[in-house]
Amino acid sequence: MQPLTPDRLAIHTMTTKPWSLAEACEHYATAGVAGICPWVEHVKPVGADEAARIIRDSGLRVPAYVRGGFFVHADAAERAAAIERTRGLIEEARTLNAEMLVIVAGARPGVPLDDARAMAADALAALAEHASRAGVRLALEPLHPMYAADRSCINTVRSARDLCDRVSHPALVVAVDVYHTWWEPGLAEQIAALGREQRLAAFHICDFKAEFSDVLLDRGLMGEGVVPIPDIRRAVENAGFTGLVEVEIFSTRYWAEDQHHWLARILDAAREHA
Amino acid sequence: MQPLTPDRLAIHTMTTKPWSLAEACEHYATAGVAGICPWVEHVKPVGADEAARIIRDSGLRVPAYVRGGFFVHADAAERAAAIERTRGLIEEARTLNAEMLVIVAGARPGVPLDDARAMAADALAALAEHASRAGVRLALEPLHPMYAADRSCINTVRSARDLCDRVSHPALVVAVDVYHTWWEPGLAEQIAALGREQRLAAFHICDFKAEFSDVLLDRGLMGEGVVPIPDIRRAVENAGFTGLVEVEIFSTRYWAEDQHHWLARILDAAREHA
Repeated sequence: MQPLTPDRLAIHTMTTKPWSLAEACEHYATAGVAGICPWVEHVKPVGADEAARIIRDSGLRVPAYVRGGFFVHADAAERAAAIERTRGLIEEARTLNAEMLVIVAGARPGVPLDDARAMAADALAALAEHASRAGVRLALEPLHPMYAADRSCINTVRSARDLCDRVSHPALVVAVDVYHTWWEPGLAEQIAALGREQRLAAFHICDFKAEFSDVLLDRGLMGEGVVPIPDIRRAVENAGFTGLVEVEIFSTRYWAEDQHHWLARILDAAREHA
Repeated sequence: MQPLTPDRLAIHTMTTKPWSLAEACEHYATAGVAGICPWVEHVKPVGADEAARIIRDSGLRVPAYVRGGFFVHADAAERAAAIERTRGLIEEARTLNAEMLVIVAGARPGVPLDDARAMAADALAALAEHASRAGVRLALEPLHPMYAADRSCINTVRSARDLCDRVSHPALVVAVDVYHTWWEPGLAEQIAALGREQRLAAFHICDFKAEFSDVLLDRGLMGEGVVPIPDIRRAVENAGFTGLVEVEIFSTRYWAEDQHHWLARILDAAREHA
């Protein structure tokens, strides 16, 4: 495999959370990174139009805008509001010239998982045609089963594929994050199936540490954990994926460091451990 | 469904960790609990012979001795040692008159999960006939995927069934714990399959809290979390399970409380929320 050099990477702005969108654009571009995946949290302070201008001026590509979804609510009005919020994010993604909008299905204590999956399917069916007309794909990201209680009822690639089958719209695709999926039995086969189905839209890297202090905000840098990232990347490339590889790391520890140093470490780690 | 009264329960000694085996036996029996699942940690201080006498005198049944396995090591000598340790535990389980020995497959940073699964299969194949002759079944317990890095390479009921198929010995069965498996897509179907295969040997209850402070030692009491325990119990009973339901809760918070009060809360919660 080719080494994962900066020109083959995009970085999620949440990875360098302390930087504004303008700072992230400047420093990523200076480092030779090819793309940026803006999070809503970094777009909101300037608005989508200004964010689009900042990103365009940086020359960075925009594989994905992050993130919509969270469709699961016991209350129908709240479900409708979640759909409308995501509809607005599809428009922002179009403004940002993003290829896709990342979708987290949602989950909620008290809502049985099978019901939650049905709610997510209904919401995505309601949004897929709008997304398609906007030229934005919806990239469903399965989250690790430790988030099944309150974040996502879709916890495996297999389960994401099942949801795609239910919705059955070409605008609905899948984002594979090593953190969430590395443990899945038959992962390589699932990734190959995504490729055959033209649904393998994104590949996210970071690492899963055997010991972690926080279930959300203590993700590891590539090489710090247990994930066989090169093996998974090989499966992803064998499945036909040619997009930018996305670095997405939430870490209060790394956010507290000098972000220039942190960015340099990320680029080294991508080369050496991914 | 019948309410889950104490006469239908067994309690894992680790649930009331501060109590010695003798104290646990006395207080469980006084409360009308039908069975006890001794952990190695509670048997070791007195030895298996004395532990067997204490339990016999209490009149409690012993569904399971807990726990062997942890077969995954890069080093062959360490793998052999893990098998020998489990062989010793099978003998202790026989001494304790336990129906089964709970098995955790093991996992180890640096050992790919497919290799780990092969190591677990080899170890279980080496032990199954011994267990069978000892009259002790080996109850493989899939652990939640958040333990895939360093505790278990078997993280779903489906995956446990696959391992059973590989080993193909009637002494190898499966323990289903709601904490580990509640999120699994198609769980009811997987449980039904275990029933058809005569492999549904144990059913463990506690609860999975949406917010938890520790990945190991902050399990919830039934009713405190998100698991639809009665739905899963129904699936287990529909699959033909008639054994004692086992309460297994690790919680530094509850271990710090008065254990008599804690035991009373467990019995109430089993009646009301399981």
